[in-house]
Amino acid sequence: MPTHPHAPMPNDSPAADNNPSADDRRAHESLDPEDWQRMRALAHRMVDDALTYLQTVAQRPVWQPVPPAVQTQLQGKLPHEPSAPEKVYDEFVENILPYPLGNIHPRFWAWYMGNGTVFGALADLLAATMNPNHGGGQHAANLVELQVIGWMKEITGFPDTASGLLVSGGSMANLVGIAVARNSCAGFDVRRYGVADSAQKLLVYASSETHSCNQKAVELLGLGNENLRKIDLNDDYSMHLQHLADTIAADQQAGHRPICVVATAGTVNTGAIDDLNAIADLCQQHKIWFHVDGAIGAVALLADNVRAKLCGLERADSVAMDLHKWLHIPFEAACVLVRDRELHRQTFSLMPEYLQKNTRGIASGGHWFSEYGVQLSRSFRALKIWMTIKEHGSKKLGRMIARNVAQAQYLGRLIAQHPKLELRAPIGLNIVCFRFNPGNVSAAALGKLNRAILENLQEQGLAAPSDTTLRGEYCLRVAICNHRSRDEDFDLLVRETIRIGDSLAA
Amino acid sequence: MPTHPHAPMPNDSPAADNNPSADDRRAHESLDPEDWQRMRALAHRMVDDALTYLQTVAQRPVWQPVPPAVQTQLQGKLPHEPSAPEKVYDEFVENILPYPLGNIHPRFWAWYMGNGTVFGALADLLAATMNPNHGGGQHAANLVELQVIGWMKEITGFPDTASGLLVSGGSMANLVGIAVARNSCAGFDVRRYGVADSAQKLLVYASSETHSCNQKAVELLGLGNENLRKIDLNDDYSMHLQHLADTIAADQQAGHRPICVVATAGTVNTGAIDDLNAIADLCQQHKIWFHVDGAIGAVALLADNVRAKLCGLERADSVAMDLHKWLHIPFEAACVLVRDRELHRQTFSLMPEYLQKNTRGIASGGHWFSEYGVQLSRSFRALKIWMTIKEHGSKKLGRMIARNVAQAQYLGRLIAQHPKLELRAPIGLNIVCFRFNPGNVSAAALGKLNRAILENLQEQGLAAPSDTTLRGEYCLRVAICNHRSRDEDFDLLVRETIRIGDSLAA
Repeated sequence: MPTHPHAPMPNDSPAADNNPSADDRRAHESLDPEDWQRMRALAHRMVDDALTYLQTVAQRPVWQPVPPAVQTQLQGKLPHEPSAPEKVYDEFVENILPYPLGNIHPRFWAWYMGNGTVFGALADLLAATMNPNHGGGQHAANLVELQVIGWMKEITGFPDTASGLLVSGGSMANLVGIAVARNSCAGFDVRRYGVADSAQKLLVYASSETHSCNQKAVELLGLGNENLRKIDLNDDYSMHLQHLADTIAADQQAGHRPICVVATAGTVNTGAIDDLNAIADLCQQHKIWFHVDGAIGAVALLADNVRAKLCGLERADSVAMDLHKWLHIPFEAACVLVRDRELHRQTFSLMPEYLQKNTRGIASGGHWFSEYGVQLSRSFRALKIWMTIKEHGSKKLGRMIARNVAQAQYLGRLIAQHPKLELRAPIGLNIVCFRFNPGNVSAAALGKLNRAILENLQEQGLAAPSDTTLRGEYCLRVAICNHRSRDEDFDLLVRETIRIGDSLAA
Repeated sequence: MPTHPHAPMPNDSPAADNNPSADDRRAHESLDPEDWQRMRALAHRMVDDALTYLQTVAQRPVWQPVPPAVQTQLQGKLPHEPSAPEKVYDEFVENILPYPLGNIHPRFWAWYMGNGTVFGALADLLAATMNPNHGGGQHAANLVELQVIGWMKEITGFPDTASGLLVSGGSMANLVGIAVARNSCAGFDVRRYGVADSAQKLLVYASSETHSCNQKAVELLGLGNENLRKIDLNDDYSMHLQHLADTIAADQQAGHRPICVVATAGTVNTGAIDDLNAIADLCQQHKIWFHVDGAIGAVALLADNVRAKLCGLERADSVAMDLHKWLHIPFEAACVLVRDRELHRQTFSLMPEYLQKNTRGIASGGHWFSEYGVQLSRSFRALKIWMTIKEHGSKKLGRMIARNVAQAQYLGRLIAQHPKLELRAPIGLNIVCFRFNPGNVSAAALGKLNRAILENLQEQGLAAPSDTTLRGEYCLRVAICNHRSRDEDFDLLVRETIRIGDSLAA
């Protein structure tokens, strides 16, 4: 092999550039550090700061607003000239680091997010260092993604022959699943002719508690949200099976074509899980695609106290699962699995001449991820999943999920014990909806009072529940997806809710 | 403010847990490191390894295949038990790190990818440490994303009032742009009724050199690839304007509805740039959405030797730009800009009760990114863009682009000077298509010979061009999107191509 031209003159060796002219310097400039030793020192500082930041997170307020002066700082125009990396980092430390969303904190229970992990964050450094593109090709990173997808099949009970793809989140995972459903069940070549060519209305079914991303997917796919049938609920907020069966029957009678049922394994409002086996039976009977939105709940198959409720998930034609929620992988990390690999590939595969696979070299390697989803350029998100799961093992990850479910029950008991607190929905999984009610207050005033409690909890940096509206009534919502939360964090939540509520009501 | 329950007993203080029982330990376990000092030491090792890896990249082969034994190592089943982080990292160092795709190397010119930067990779560590979710809310990270989007408007000459979104890559950026085009120009409520409700065929136009992701987008949006009109090419591989005008006129006469022209600023095969001003005029005249796929070329507005060719881009209704290509941000980083903020929002906004904005607390903050794209959970990809652009400034980033364009011309001259090398397309921007031709060889044999040259260049770790087929003929393709490439790297490419070609032809 010939010598590599860079070998004798690495960028970091000033001795090799003996008093170079400005032109020489310009010819050899790159986006690499001008001074590797300085960058190395800065990188070590960053690592120290990052670890300390996470080690001490519980000692800081869960959230604080970004001060107006800092907001102004973050509005500067495009910088034309370079800045010293240390200066850029100092700006970060001063203006960005102190004002997080809060979801890394042990008392963040808003919306539905994971915390991330230290090792997962370090994995992102390593991933961006290698910086491969996961569209396809023969390299180790692609094998890591295939391995991680294999683990997801093991968790869900999907067969080895299924296909899968790591994606940005539940929204994309559901979009992919419903796209395959559309193309596979429409009865004609949708890729070629488009939805307009359908002789029948193409219909999708989901409970009225389905996540909004499923409606977005139906809209984006050109199906129209009128054709997303919202099915009624049982008292526990799961899908009403008889209403689903009746709606499908009526639609078929009317000459429409049901193509997909989107079941939910863990609704975002209350954590309800649809009866997956019953829906699987119905889909099988009517040859309808059975998609499971398991963004929240699918990984709870690892938890002893949840697993049984998810029975039937393994029968899905496709399943969406978030890994940046209850597996605490740093954002973005999710997975979609499709039972029939060929239907999956047929929905997305498009291999123009510049993407032809070769039998040798970089473009070899049988599996091209770009044939299974929207993206062609794809990052090495697999690494943080691989490292986090190896570090902790599936059993411990399952225990962390199980503990959150137990903590929801614990919080439920605290609420039940207190005369001024009301549970507003059954605790389906790990989500507790409740409100402060001192009595003798109108419904409207009660909503206002609880909103003020929420604002005070957040603004005082104490805890971060979010809020929602259940059957028309405002309530606080505690979604416990947090490996750092301890029982005493819920004691504090209840104590402070009462304190703030009493003081506001007075 | 009350004391925080974690404060007196940080996770890292074994003294606080005086001989705890197994149950106590279980109750307090988390996914944080059991031993912070050990994790800190490991993190420092990772940083050192990462910097050395990038500092010495030029001294290693551009690519090497993953050995079968390592492939087997990367097929293990789901780990149930934990592993020491050091052990997991050692596995990474042994089985993954030595087998990159190659795009970080100075002689990688395959497909079309950036290198990444050291500071950008460190930014990913910081982003994953804070681990915010960019769906919405009041926190510093969202302000950073808004600032970065503002910079993209400055670069492209888009107005302040335009909207934008950071996305995973060009595929998603184009999908968002074409989705807004569909919903804005169809003439009815596509979100509600779906594409099936259209009284007319909805048509999209792009040159036959348009990137495959645009066809994917048209298919996904339910428009049907039959309704993507592929327009003929000029000799320089740009869109043939008269053919575009004639096709639109014929379609209108036939009662169809042209909704969008996708112009390309930098085709993937040859780097050709469509005549953006002429297309803008035509779109204006016919009230058709003017989308620019600037995945490759849009950021070249920063380069003195390209800017003029991109004239008219600032008139687009929407533009897709990749930042992990020619700005060298680590994967994934791209941006879509839409001139009419309200049309953009109307395509994607869906705010269910659990996403209601509040006027105070975490859910305040006027701008919710989830209203402008597919994703709800979104990572802090803005940080690596923010830090990289601050570090280098736009002028230097422009110089690096300009140098790649000059290097394409340099390589073109080397090819022109050598009797056995043939340029196969005009060098539009930074992409050089050529082949080795010793004479007296059939067309079929010539293709085979050049494929073998490519395989040898890659397998010997010398250089990584890719290949493509132009007007039916196989050729090597050198896409120069590399801040580490120097002129001598192209000298080596030519030298080795001749050496391998001669030896194979003999």
